Order: sequence, then C-alpha cells, then structure tokens
Amino acid sequence: MTTPISSLSAKIDTFLRDSDAPTPFVVVDVDLVEERYVQLVEAIPAARVYYAVKANPALPILRRLVALGSAFDVASPAEIDRCLEAGANPNDISYGNTIKKRRDIAYAHSCGVRRYTVDVEAELDKVAVEAPGASVCVRLRHDCGGADWPLSRKFGAEAPDVVRVLALAGKAGLESGVSFHVGSQQRDLGAWDDTLEVVAEIVERARNQGANPSFVNLGGGFPGTYREAAPTIDAYGAAVRTALAKWFPLGLTEVMVEPGRYLVADAGVLRSEVVLVSRRSPADSERWIYLDCGKFHGLAETMDEAIRYRLRTPHDGQTSGPVVLAGPTCDSADVLYEKSAYELPLALAEGDMVDILSAGAYTTTYSSVGFNGFPPLQEHYV
Amino acid sequence: MTTPISSLSAKIDTFLRDSDAPTPFVVVDVDLVEERYVQLVEAIPAARVYYAVKANPALPILRRLVALGSAFDVASPAEIDRCLEAGANPNDISYGNTIKKRRDIAYAHSCGVRRYTVDVEAELDKVAVEAPGASVCVRLRHDCGGADWPLSRKFGAEAPDVVRVLALAGKAGLESGVSFHVGSQQRDLGAWDDTLEVVAEIVERARNQGANPSFVNLGGGFPGTYREAAPTIDAYGAAVRTALAKWFPLGLTEVMVEPGRYLVADAGVLRSEVVLVSRRSPADSERWIYLDCGKFHGLAETMDEAIRYRLRTPHDGQTSGPVVLAGPTCDSADVLYEKSAYELPLALAEGDMVDILSAGAYTTTYSSVGFNGFPPLQEHYV
Repeated sequence: MTTPISSLSAKIDTFLRDSDAPTPFVVVDVDLVEERYVQLVEAIPAARVYYAVKANPALPILRRLVALGSAFDVASPAEIDRCLEAGANPNDISYGNTIKKRRDIAYAHSCGVRRYTVDVEAELDKVAVEAPGASVCVRLRHDCGGADWPLSRKFGAEAPDVVRVLALAGKAGLESGVSFHVGSQQRDLGAWDDTLEVVAEIVERARNQGANPSFVNLGGGFPGTYREAAPTIDAYGAAVRTALAKWFPLGLTEVMVEPGRYLVADAGVLRSEVVLVSRRSPADSERWIYLDCGKFHGLAETMDEAIRYRLRTPHDGQTSGPVVLAGPTCDSADVLYEKSAYELPLALAEGDMVDILSAGAYTTTYSSVGFNGFPPLQEHYV
Repeated sequence: MTTPISSLSAKIDTFLRDSDAPTPFVVVDVDLVEERYVQLVEAIPAARVYYAVKANPALPILRRLVALGSAFDVASPAEIDRCLEAGANPNDISYGNTIKKRRDIAYAHSCGVRRYTVDVEAELDKVAVEAPGASVCVRLRHDCGGADWPLSRKFGAEAPDVVRVLALAGKAGLESGVSFHVGSQQRDLGAWDDTLEVVAEIVERARNQGANPSFVNLGGGFPGTYREAAPTIDAYGAAVRTALAKWFPLGLTEVMVEPGRYLVADAGVLRSEVVLVSRRSPADSERWIYLDCGKFHGLAETMDEAIRYRLRTPHDGQTSGPVVLAGPTCDSADVLYEKSAYELPLALAEGDMVDILSAGAYTTTYSSVGFNGFPPLQEHYV
C-alpha cells in the first residue's frame, strides 16, 4: 500500500534532506498551492475561488493566494484577522460558518465582511441585525453520498426551508444566494448535477416568493491525493461546467467555489519517526508500527480511517507485510489504521522516518495543544 | 437528562458568578482533587497512588498532589518536566507509556526516573540499554469489558508473552512487575478479580522462569460522575481489596494504582455559551443546540458519544425537549450528542450558559491549537 514516489517537490525534498527539524512536522511547498489554484481556475473559469481557510490558515499560504486574486471562506473572527493580515480585501471574505456568535457577526461587519452563510431563520435574524446590508448565503443540505469525510445533519436546510429563508432574506432587503457542499473528498462526479438540479428549483421557487437569489456557492469537495484514486480536476471541472450550463442556462451573477483540501493537501508532507515496531508474539505476522504522530497531533482525519494517506518509507520497494499504524499517546483511540489493510516494508525499524503524503490540509490546526505532553505538530513553509 | 445540581463547590460557584472570563473555559477546584485523593487512599490503603498526569497536567493540581504525597504516572518527557517543576521526587515518577523514543528514555533516566512500562521485548531492550538499573513494569492486555472508553489492541501483551518479557527482564537483572488497565470508567467491579487471577498466574510462572516480579500496578478505571451512574469508590475499594487478598494472600512488595479521571474529572466544570438554537423547520420537535465548545476544543471524549457528561443550564427544572448538541466548527464530525437522547429546557436560548459537569479530566490538553480559528480551551484553577 506504500506508494513509491521519487520526488514530491524539489523544495520539499531539499527540506527533508537538509533540515534537522524535530519530528513530527508538516512541510508545505507554497508553489504547489499556486499550481493547484491555477488548475482549479482553469477547470471552472466561471467560478470565483474562496479558499476554505480552515484547511490550513498559515500566512504563507494566505499571502500567496491573495497575490493570485483568491477570495476567502472563513469560520471565525480569528480567520478573518488572519486573512486581513495576509492582505485580503474584506470584500473578498465570506463568513461561511452557519454557527456564529452575534458579537462575531458584528465584528466581521465592522471589518467590512459582507457575505454570511446561514441555514435557519434564527441565524438570518442575527445577520440582519448585526450586519446590515449583508449578502446572505443560505445553505442547502442535500445528501449525495460518495464522500470520504461524510457530511452529517449538522449543516444545511431542506429545500423547502431554504426557499423560506431566502424569501425572508428578500423581505429584509438582503441580497441572497444558495450554497451547498457535496462532501469532502467527493468522488462521485454526478454529485454536482444532482445538487444543482435542486438548487435551480429552489432559485425559481424563491423568485416566485419575491426573493432574488443571485449567486450559487458550489462549496468544496475537490479531492486531495490519498490512497484511493479520485477523478482528475479536469473531470471535476467538466462535470461542474456541464451541470451549471444545464441547470442555469442563462448564467448566474456569481458562482463561488470553496476549495480547501484541494488547494493545500497535496502541497504538504508530514514527517514522522518510527518509535517502536512491535510483534506481540514472536510468531505474529502483523506488526504494530508506532509513530511519533497520531490522531491527537495532526492526523485527526484518520478518525474511523476516513482519510487514508499514502505513506513513504526509506525501504519502499522491498518486501512488505501487514501493519497496524498507531500514534504515540497512551490513548487507546490513538490508532490510525487497523482495518484498512496497510502494508509496509519488513525492513522498517525504530528511528526510520515515515512520510505521510498529501498532509497539507486539516493537520496543523487540528493538533491538540499537548495531549500526553507531546507538543503540537510543527509546520514549515518552503 | 439535565441533572439539577444546586452547588458544585463554593469556589467554582463564586468563580462562575463573578468572573467574566470568555467562554469556553474549564474551572477546577483543586480542593476537590484533594478530597478524591483522600477517598481513594482510604478505599485502597495498600496501594500507592500514581496520578495519571495526562488526565490534567495543570501545575496547581500537580503541586497539590505532591503535597499530599502522591506519585505520578507520565507519558512523555514534558510530563516529567512538569512533575519535577511541581516538586515531585523523580523516584515517584513512573514512565507508563509503552511507546517511548530511545532518547526520551535516556532523558527520563538522566532525570532520575526509575520505573518504565513495556509490553514487548523490543521496548524492554530500549529500557535496559537507556535506563540501566530500571524497574520494569510489563503490561498485560486482558479484555474485561464494562468500560465506557474501551481499550483497544494497542497496549499490552497476552499472558504468555508477559511471562516471557518478565523472564527476559529477570535475565537482564532488572526489577519487574505486572500492570494492567481495566478500561477507563470501568463499571464492572468484577474486572479486578478477573484480571488479578490472571496476574497471579503470570507471577507464579515468571518465578518458575527465574524472574521475581515484585509489584502489581492496578492501573486506573475509577470513574468520574457522568450521566450514567457508576459504583461508589468504597465499592471499588472493597472489590480491589478482596481480589488482592484472594490472589495475593501473602501480599506484594508494592501495589500501584494510576487514577486520572477519578481524581480530577469531578473537580472541574466546563462553561460554554449557546451560539444558536435551531429548528430546521418550524414544526421540528428536535432542536439543534450549538455550543461554543465542541469535539475539537476540549470535548474529544464525546467521540462516538462515549463519555456522556451531565449538563446544567439556567432553566433546569422547566419543561424540556429533545436536542442534538453540536460544537461551533464547520466540521460535520463536530457533533457531541445525537444518539444519546439528551433533553434540555425549551427555554434555552442563544447566549445562555451551558455548564458541562465533571469536565476536569481529558479536556484541556485534548483541545486543538486552533481548528477553525477558535482558540484553545481556557483553564482556571481555584
């Protein structure tokens, strides 16, 4: 299951060769983020990119994206501050979290942020009061399956409720639009067609009720490169372009996309060290490989083995055998992969480095502050 | 499901009334930690208490426990440093993590730490080299069910393998003992009898192979006070005393216990604010209550709804209805309770405080460094 990869990025290779930074750490090549950004813009030229800052809020990434003309999707006041520090225009910031404290909306408004996502009337009320003149994005919940990191019932309203909230926004004199999210690491290209059909119907019904939704936010869901293959970004682009042309033949005032994972995952490598290789009994064919990085120090997305990272070791290509991979804490839940049939070289030994590939997204900020006394995941940008 | 509790601790009540500390935060009454410590020592007088520092490594807690004569169970070099800073004697520190870097063992040895837990020969080899003269604790894996936070296959060896590692330790001239863990929040009092029978057999077999295990480490598993009732500490004490007398009628040189949760959980309250109360549709009987603290900012033990905290609201005693409880991040996995049939007062509104009781253990250090831009969980000690 190890993927031998000769070179990731010359800059990352150099860093990994020359640095004596203590493990575990993530190293991100910001040029690769730019490369992905350019590819996405080419694949969906009609859409404005709002980078989902939560995927990795590091300033070097935000600064590069500001320079490229990206907009930003934020989840909290601290993410707004970070974008402004990176030079973003507040008009290019969308407050996409449907769960916002009243004072946080007021703060965002005072910063000049104009667009806010809601999924219920109670949240719309807060936005209407605290951010007068806001542009309101109403989030649809539409389960289309096919995603590795599944969506729950936590976000989004059913179609009739979206229409109702849009109508209320219209009555309040607010600009509005519809957003959805097909699920992170979505591998079913039909998800956009399926959902945009529902969105088109919502827009028409809302117009009949006096609202005038003017934009559609396609969310994210574009994949990182993990163990199981996903379609190419060109295939995603074609699916989205076709679905937009089909369901919105007259076009839209604005189309947004909110990639997070797609822009930064493949740009990063997480380096960890093997702490212990253990066979419970001398005769056991299965080895337990304990790394110095686990679920509580950056690899939270291995929860339920949802995201299955590609791994690289110094012994790739040699004979391998089954392993269970676990983190270094005393917590029994700190097991990365037990059921996903990972295999690693038999030669892998204590002290070897294991590189976890495509680890630039949802790792650094997920890390605990110090569970079991282990420091937070370190990060480097090259 | 809300438990009305008139008073937790005068000091915590005063803090909650007078402080304007921003939520979410944990406030811990260190006197309650002392109270629990005294109760545990009375319940199992034969045992030396090694506080599991990972449960809450705050200095005010460690200092109080040092003053009470407690010993400490640590998982990492940083936890050793913290104990020493609090005034602990290195002889009273046990390095209980079975997964240790070679250089971390050497560091612990240089600090004067003498006792190390292992569960495979490869780890014993590291300890024998890096910590000459070590006292080695070999961890048994014995699944006895009944625990809310289940143990996995991550730790511990089967009985015959424990005997083998003990024999190797004996050959290396090292002092040795046997440890086990019945599982956190263990509610089956028979777990200790069941496991100590196996331990007694291991000790006898190891003696026949030239080793001389001199101590037994009973681990933790003593409960915090969550929604579902657990036996009293006196009942635990009686079960442990009876099992020790039955299986080790001649006594043992040393008996260790490693409480974490039991000493600190009930001493702390996590205060959070209601950010949004939402009914997806006006007709929905189920409300979603979004708090400003979730799975990624201290409430990690709600994973799979394993630990079911008691809640307190300003409207307790009034008519209540079913709720789903969720955290404030854009992550769909950040849902606390969806299947555990929680009910909260219908009057609960945005801006109300919800107190999560018995939250002094496994909260502060589990918090992420800043997922979604929300700062780590704050902590106060009174």
